[in-house]
Amino acid sequence: MKAIVVYSGGLDSTVLLYDLVQTGHTVRALSVNYGQRHSKELTCAAKVCAGLGLDHRVADLSAVTGLLGHSSLTDPAVAVPEGHYAEDSMKQTVVPNRNMLLLSLAAAWAISEKADCVAYAAHAGDHTIYPDCREEFTDALDRAIRLADWHEVFLHRPYVQMTKADIVARGAELGVPFADTWSCYQGGEKHCGRCGTCIERREAFHLAGVEDPTPYAADAPSLADLIAHDWRLPSC
Amino acid sequence: MKAIVVYSGGLDSTVLLYDLVQTGHTVRALSVNYGQRHSKELTCAAKVCAGLGLDHRVADLSAVTGLLGHSSLTDPAVAVPEGHYAEDSMKQTVVPNRNMLLLSLAAAWAISEKADCVAYAAHAGDHTIYPDCREEFTDALDRAIRLADWHEVFLHRPYVQMTKADIVARGAELGVPFADTWSCYQGGEKHCGRCGTCIERREAFHLAGVEDPTPYAADAPSLADLIAHDWRLPSC
Repeated sequence: MKAIVVYSGGLDSTVLLYDLVQTGHTVRALSVNYGQRHSKELTCAAKVCAGLGLDHRVADLSAVTGLLGHSSLTDPAVAVPEGHYAEDSMKQTVVPNRNMLLLSLAAAWAISEKADCVAYAAHAGDHTIYPDCREEFTDALDRAIRLADWHEVFLHRPYVQMTKADIVARGAELGVPFADTWSCYQGGEKHCGRCGTCIERREAFHLAGVEDPTPYAADAPSLADLIAHDWRLPSC
Repeated sequence: MKAIVVYSGGLDSTVLLYDLVQTGHTVRALSVNYGQRHSKELTCAAKVCAGLGLDHRVADLSAVTGLLGHSSLTDPAVAVPEGHYAEDSMKQTVVPNRNMLLLSLAAAWAISEKADCVAYAAHAGDHTIYPDCREEFTDALDRAIRLADWHEVFLHRPYVQMTKADIVARGAELGVPFADTWSCYQGGEKHCGRCGTCIERREAFHLAGVEDPTPYAADAPSLADLIAHDWRLPSC
């Protein structure tokens, strides 16, 4: 199978990339610069693709993000929320319609390359506060992508029933270099260890029983503290 | 109703723009520069929006068109096809997944502005060689856009059962300045009068019984010749 992988440089999509490569598929990777406030994910994405010898392209959408409203991911004036499952603050991290934009670009490249599918690491644990992570959304988009050209491309979502812990376990089987992936919303030298995605990441390793090789910042809460506080920040 | 109109500067979307404005809706217009070989449409779009006093934005996707394959609309090395319904050559004008990209951007802006809909001038006469003009494609995309955010935006396609001649008739009722709209694939000073979209445009005015105010190039075939040759180029 020939696949275009929507590749953020994060944990989930890196496992998907390794999964498709190691199961014998032809893979190209597409990342998008949509004006994120930091580019750590894109740096990680480039490093992982270089290691695998993959064709990796970065589509620059930063010129259009002015149309896309405000979000803490693109607007330096909006504070990054901390803590786990804090819905009100997590909503600030939503870029309007981001997933449809990413998948439309990937589908365009797939049609152009006569690829079989766009592969996308949506999983069961994606928060319901992200409406465009819902399965019914990707189902509708799968149908639209299949109809977008006479050469049919489908939306491959092999992890849609898996949790993030399942994905970590799969990545461990595949030998994914987890330390080369980036999850943190902050753009520090190391993962902050305390924002929503950092805490999800740490919880997933813990639940999967896989050692977490991620270097966290010195002031990050300890794993023991997070477990004791049910994955909420000790200070909350 | 608050609408984001996908606005190319062409005839169909200009009629839609006038239609929504004159029926009392709040309208913003979105055009996309996807690396077209000429920008006559965008110049026309800006002029029409200025005349109506509308907020008009041009999203620049030209940086990503390298990912989108070759097409005579973006690649100067591919010749523009001439004549009507010449399927093989018209296929060269397809930009992969262009409509999904346009509609995704418009939906992003609509979500950000809490608009009610994205309005889109798809019509019954859109060629079946453009797979992403088919009604089942826009139906699937309507569903995806409705699911993309908790604030539901729908895809408004009021012309989907109308022919281009019906749209010309509607535009005449509304007083649309047709001469300010651009259809031609060539970027000449005047419409060439002989490419696929020029011939469709001329046929639509003829069928609607509306005088065509478009200035055509001196070497364009005459209306009488086109009618005599059943809307094929006399030289074909």
